[in-house]
Amino acid sequence: MVGLPARGKTYISQKVCRYLTWLGIKTKVFNVGNCRRELCGAQQDNSFFDPNNLSGQKQRKEAANMTLQQMLQWYDEEDGVVGIYDATNSTLERRKWLHDTLTAQDIQVFFIESICEDEALVSANIKDVKLSSPDYKNMDPDMAVSDFQARIAQYTSQYQTIVEQDYSYIKLINVGSQVIVNMVKGYLESRIVYYLMNLHIRGRKIYMSRHGESMYNLEGKLGGDADLSPRGRMYANLLPVIVKEKLGGKELMVWTSTLKRTIQTSEHLPYLKQHRKALDELDAGVCDGLTYEQVEERYPEDFARRDDDKFNYRYRGGESYRDVVNRLEPIIMDLERQEDILIVAHQAIIRCLYGYFMNYNQEDLPYIKIPLHTLIELTPKAYYCEEKFYKADIPAVCTHRPKPTERRPPINTQAVLGSGGEVPSPLLPPSVLTSATTISAPSSS
Amino acid sequence: MVGLPARGKTYISQKVCRYLTWLGIKTKVFNVGNCRRELCGAQQDNSFFDPNNLSGQKQRKEAANMTLQQMLQWYDEEDGVVGIYDATNSTLERRKWLHDTLTAQDIQVFFIESICEDEALVSANIKDVKLSSPDYKNMDPDMAVSDFQARIAQYTSQYQTIVEQDYSYIKLINVGSQVIVNMVKGYLESRIVYYLMNLHIRGRKIYMSRHGESMYNLEGKLGGDADLSPRGRMYANLLPVIVKEKLGGKELMVWTSTLKRTIQTSEHLPYLKQHRKALDELDAGVCDGLTYEQVEERYPEDFARRDDDKFNYRYRGGESYRDVVNRLEPIIMDLERQEDILIVAHQAIIRCLYGYFMNYNQEDLPYIKIPLHTLIELTPKAYYCEEKFYKADIPAVCTHRPKPTERRPPINTQAVLGSGGEVPSPLLPPSVLTSATTISAPSSS
Repeated sequence: MVGLPARGKTYISQKVCRYLTWLGIKTKVFNVGNCRRELCGAQQDNSFFDPNNLSGQKQRKEAANMTLQQMLQWYDEEDGVVGIYDATNSTLERRKWLHDTLTAQDIQVFFIESICEDEALVSANIKDVKLSSPDYKNMDPDMAVSDFQARIAQYTSQYQTIVEQDYSYIKLINVGSQVIVNMVKGYLESRIVYYLMNLHIRGRKIYMSRHGESMYNLEGKLGGDADLSPRGRMYANLLPVIVKEKLGGKELMVWTSTLKRTIQTSEHLPYLKQHRKALDELDAGVCDGLTYEQVEERYPEDFARRDDDKFNYRYRGGESYRDVVNRLEPIIMDLERQEDILIVAHQAIIRCLYGYFMNYNQEDLPYIKIPLHTLIELTPKAYYCEEKFYKADIPAVCTHRPKPTERRPPINTQAVLGSGGEVPSPLLPPSVLTSATTISAPSSS
Repeated sequence: MVGLPARGKTYISQKVCRYLTWLGIKTKVFNVGNCRRELCGAQQDNSFFDPNNLSGQKQRKEAANMTLQQMLQWYDEEDGVVGIYDATNSTLERRKWLHDTLTAQDIQVFFIESICEDEALVSANIKDVKLSSPDYKNMDPDMAVSDFQARIAQYTSQYQTIVEQDYSYIKLINVGSQVIVNMVKGYLESRIVYYLMNLHIRGRKIYMSRHGESMYNLEGKLGGDADLSPRGRMYANLLPVIVKEKLGGKELMVWTSTLKRTIQTSEHLPYLKQHRKALDELDAGVCDGLTYEQVEERYPEDFARRDDDKFNYRYRGGESYRDVVNRLEPIIMDLERQEDILIVAHQAIIRCLYGYFMNYNQEDLPYIKIPLHTLIELTPKAYYCEEKFYKADIPAVCTHRPKPTERRPPINTQAVLGSGGEVPSPLLPPSVLTSATTISAPSSS
């Protein structure tokens, strides 16, 4: 990463890390600020960052070097694929040091620079994110802002934007309103560039719901293209009410799959709808239309193999969760561009999409609890997603099969927050309830 | 388009037009040079392009305006979605005229500028493409090159690169080694940007083959995951010989589907292989494992509907050709990045991929003849693809079902060549034959 403080470097690092992790590419963020706090203590004032403060400079270089060594060790010992080195790296000299050290280890270097000339945006970022940093613990907010602005000024005096024509880089100017891409080669770099160009930071909400209970759900059958059950139709009638209460009069885009049960679930929603094949349920191949008991009886070996590694198990003639993640990748890319949106889809599909936003590891995706007749509301924040589950008061069967062995917890959100130590605020309780909706606790909070 | 002559504007226009057409987005290239030749005659020497030649300037502006009117008419009367206005548009004034005229009609404007500072590349482009232009018919090649260079100089004196910060644009510098993207908004622009960033102009060959004959092919059954027939295994044994003869000692990337018949077909190929789910055969849903006769008997209505509109017909619980095109889109994007590659896949898959390179309309894709036991070699040229079919001398069943009504011809390649009138050279006869291969005439030449 390259850029002055409060230019969204950590936000970008986290997003790229989450995207690549979801795709199954081992990725980790290495944040120099965290290391600096460990080495030198937090709550240093801006004079620590003065380029003429030789002692401060030495300590900061030490933190930079120690973080780099940790990253090299991770490549070496843990088979890391993409390390994200999150620091200002704002001088030619610092970048040359990074580039030469990494290239010598046969690690390709790709710089991501974030430039923001919009003072209002920078101020908002400072208030939203930096005030909760351990650097400003217990400090008066106005003083903290003014100290942070002084810290930025210390960096600004030395700042050199990337001009190194022989380096691979992307320069994001004013949140992507202009983008400069230099010498991008290779598949991964190209995916990251496309992903970064699709990001926006406008506030929005992502709603998700499984279809209402289907006739196949009642019979415990997999797959198929069944109609909704009577209770499923009740949910379809209630869904517009729930959505409207959350959304107010705002516009919404609705995506469904091409299967009857999601189309029927969305039929009373008075919004623009798209039916997308990529949102169809995981294809159970030869097991389509069978119950779990029949699968166990007819394909006992397959059944055991699926329990063994549910993420990678591919139904005969069908799909694995890994296949589903691959086919959902363009959906994620498209989702990042969208404003408010509601996705009405299927258990495995919502698991994968929800898992992307909530930062789950691949192997945990198949075990996320996504109950029927429940609207999920995700609100992307700087470094995490806020989630609320609105459970409609309409009974439905449970289709969740827990993992045979003990459930592994999802990635600890705080542990991957490499940012300036900012910690997500606790999940807010939902503020409004209609008589028709009850709220269940989020499964992973 | 924006750029000096011989900067690949027509190449880019054609590629974008082919890509969007394949995705089902109605796209057309409007070439000002063609219109200028119609209005003023070809074979004007470079003085015609002198900015001080007022009569020449007036006539060129007239051609620009007439072409723009044609494009507006096409949007209006033929429901065009993406018009590509292929001309130099090398001054602020010209771009403002375009921008204001189009914006007034509620048409979004996106500029694609191609800048090339590599003189050798420009010279190669002039020799490869411009000498076959009607502008230089019957002229001595050296004189033609020098006249064309003088023409470029006429434009260079007036050239203004895009600096208009309020316009949406992409600037491709030195064949994409640097890319600047400004104010890109919307799905289509973002797709085009990503596509352009994946293009390269290094020479390469794309090989395609269906799997060898399978047991299901012998029985006339659809879909499934059958093994190769004995004759299919013979093809698998021969394929490395055929490929090696065409390729020499060069490296090759091999992509197969995840089904047994493509993996078995590629098993003796001594190259790096990837098995990609997105290359699996069109999913026949409830018809999987049936013969065409059984489908006709059990699902007579479906059978008729499929004949009616084979591109859009979706098998119950399965896919349509349209679904397949959507799932192949990331494969096309990835293919554009690759060097020499061999794809071993299935009838519907090869039809869609071949149709992309050979510029077929969507509704014609399901009827392209892709025989078994045949290696297809495509060599991308500036404005078209050269194709050769190498048929192995191993018999196989024919799985092609012709269109019930008369076959529509593919898009006429010359008709969509909006470029300086350059015409593709005729298909070359294959130069080398092994005793093991025979050559069949390409189906669409």
